Amino acid sequence: MTSSIGLEVIKEISVATPSKIVFLVIDGLGGLPNPETGKTELEAARTPNLDQLAAEGICGLADPVAPGITPGSAPGHLALFGYDPVRYIIGRGVLEAVGIDFNLQSGDIAARGNFCTLNKEGLVTDRRAGRVSTEKCVELCRLLDGRSISGIRVLVAPVREHRFIAVFRGKGLALEVSDSDPLREGVPPKKVEALSPEASKLASVANGFISHAKLTLAEHYPANMVLLRGFSQCPHLPSMKEIYKLTPAAIASYPMYRGLAKLVGMEVLDTGTSIEEEFMTLKQNYAKYDFFFLHVKPADNAGEDGDFERRVKIFEQFDRLLPELLALKPDVIVVAGDHSTPAMFKGHSWHPVPVLLHSRWCRPDQVKEFSEPACALGGLGRFPAVQLMTLAMANALKLTKFGA
Amino acid sequence: MTSSIGLEVIKEISVATPSKIVFLVIDGLGGLPNPETGKTELEAARTPNLDQLAAEGICGLADPVAPGITPGSAPGHLALFGYDPVRYIIGRGVLEAVGIDFNLQSGDIAARGNFCTLNKEGLVTDRRAGRVSTEKCVELCRLLDGRSISGIRVLVAPVREHRFIAVFRGKGLALEVSDSDPLREGVPPKKVEALSPEASKLASVANGFISHAKLTLAEHYPANMVLLRGFSQCPHLPSMKEIYKLTPAAIASYPMYRGLAKLVGMEVLDTGTSIEEEFMTLKQNYAKYDFFFLHVKPADNAGEDGDFERRVKIFEQFDRLLPELLALKPDVIVVAGDHSTPAMFKGHSWHPVPVLLHSRWCRPDQVKEFSEPACALGGLGRFPAVQLMTLAMANALKLTKFGA
Repeated sequence: MTSSIGLEVIKEISVATPSKIVFLVIDGLGGLPNPETGKTELEAARTPNLDQLAAEGICGLADPVAPGITPGSAPGHLALFGYDPVRYIIGRGVLEAVGIDFNLQSGDIAARGNFCTLNKEGLVTDRRAGRVSTEKCVELCRLLDGRSISGIRVLVAPVREHRFIAVFRGKGLALEVSDSDPLREGVPPKKVEALSPEASKLASVANGFISHAKLTLAEHYPANMVLLRGFSQCPHLPSMKEIYKLTPAAIASYPMYRGLAKLVGMEVLDTGTSIEEEFMTLKQNYAKYDFFFLHVKPADNAGEDGDFERRVKIFEQFDRLLPELLALKPDVIVVAGDHSTPAMFKGHSWHPVPVLLHSRWCRPDQVKEFSEPACALGGLGRFPAVQLMTLAMANALKLTKFGA
Repeated sequence: MTSSIGLEVIKEISVATPSKIVFLVIDGLGGLPNPETGKTELEAARTPNLDQLAAEGICGLADPVAPGITPGSAPGHLALFGYDPVRYIIGRGVLEAVGIDFNLQSGDIAARGNFCTLNKEGLVTDRRAGRVSTEKCVELCRLLDGRSISGIRVLVAPVREHRFIAVFRGKGLALEVSDSDPLREGVPPKKVEALSPEASKLASVANGFISHAKLTLAEHYPANMVLLRGFSQCPHLPSMKEIYKLTPAAIASYPMYRGLAKLVGMEVLDTGTSIEEEFMTLKQNYAKYDFFFLHVKPADNAGEDGDFERRVKIFEQFDRLLPELLALKPDVIVVAGDHSTPAMFKGHSWHPVPVLLHSRWCRPDQVKEFSEPACALGGLGRFPAVQLMTLAMANALKLTKFGA
């Protein structure tokens, strides 16, 4: 009785064609009004090209997961690529691994780790070990990496500052174990416990690894212990090639987004760290792919920092780069976000994300500018982000009729 | 992710009352703007009565299956009648059978057939046998009809031109077989293959029928072979009587829509071929039923032909007939379509369909005219078409409270 449709149906009706789709994903796109002006970041920004696209295209507001739900980066992006973010869960450990380009193998179980500080009584006094330097983190990971415990290899790789991943590789592992991270200070680390009989091996190997780490790190105060959480395994994600018959490419300067793109079978293109370089990469590779995911990270960072003006400037900078893309005349252009990160809120929020779809066949609405209030009156209405990919495919004439 | 409700719930809370619901279904209702004027067919048409109904009623845009999905006629209509079009699939063979008023029995398996042309090498040179006349089709079907193969009766009935149906009747048949139609020319017909062990009997009977047909048709060049596809069985559809406690009637000049109405338990009324005659039939039978489905076909044909002006005229003609219906004062009037067929697109499309609901209890919105852009701002919002029937039932005061 619902009107979302499964990937199995899309797989049946999708066809490969020469038409091209470009997804411009501005991380944390949606905002909130500045109380002083009543305008959101997008409303405050001068964005003539986005406004022109909105006027020619069709707009709406998308809920990344569901109304009221604040998504992490993984569900926010999976929804944009058409994968039900409630069904396909990417655990903390896997997301961290993917974010450092760690090559996870089928069956691997990854956990997110923190170096932390234990006092003499064995209580956690700092869950982040004073945010040790990344260099120190690399050094400590090297000490812990590669041990075998009961036939299971434990691989340890640094992320940044106090963060690392532990990857458990071998036979007989099941996932259902509790975290050792107590998530607060003043208490001892927890024991990893098996939540199902099958998971007892993983629990015992994880506890073995933690004991070993405690010994190894004894002289490395304040980083004299580890905390593990978010034990997880890669979900099986059918590839975009398989479902949509696309040859998709990802252009993203941050590793986590490159990793997410890889999980759904995109080819990750080399690019620089600026938005300009990302657009340049798109241009240079335009002939070779029929789907592009271009990820714009700084708008999210500025939102987390509560920097309204910086967000405005980033939207304006993005807008100035659009003509280069428009000159390529993609059949379908989508501008969207993985979630909102309003500067006023200083973090990810649940607010729906403005969306713009531009194509010859889009049936334009009355929206004349790209902003939250304008999109609320758009022809796409308010819709689950997971439907966006289907709409883009339809507008690119890559879907045949459903049913007789 | 959704808030749609199942038919089991509707069945619990629906009650029979004297109030009357009229569903006016304009096939292919939704359009796209003419690039010369920026107006869609509905915007271009002078439709004072529809505009008046829109002003008094509540409007919205409905997605027949899901955003981006282009529906065939069967899913488009099932959704309007409140049946999840993804759950209740009507295969090509069944739809063709239903479309010629063929009396399918429970367990029958129907396939769509084409007469085609084979050359001496056994390759298909014309999948439609030069579109043989309907008379010739009738003659050839008579030659093939009624044979028994391994205890299975194979019934053959003409559709139109090169099209026919083959119906397999008997015990031990399962559905999962492949098509013999290669769907292109220059290759030989395929063998029907069982896709599950249970389906081996149907595959062997179907291949037996095809061999027999080849012999029988040898002297009937260019119609010297048959191609079969879309083997399917009637899904079990709970009747509208059962779910909604309605006594529903269908008024449709095209057999396929009469057939679809029959599948959900409507009584099909005799009517003529024009919209005027359909409205007359409604008037004459108004006292006897409490739900009417009136189907207006020509708007879809004009869309497929790419004839913008003809669509405009059909909408205007429809509008002129409305006062006769309004004089009957139905409790609920719905104007909707099964899908869009924009003249600019020359075919079914995925665009959502304008919907108008008029009743004493509808809570009117600000929409003052019946068109795609106006409906995009309507109080019904953008919604899955499968929810429309529940809304109509509510407005007719035929649904009691849900939950304590």
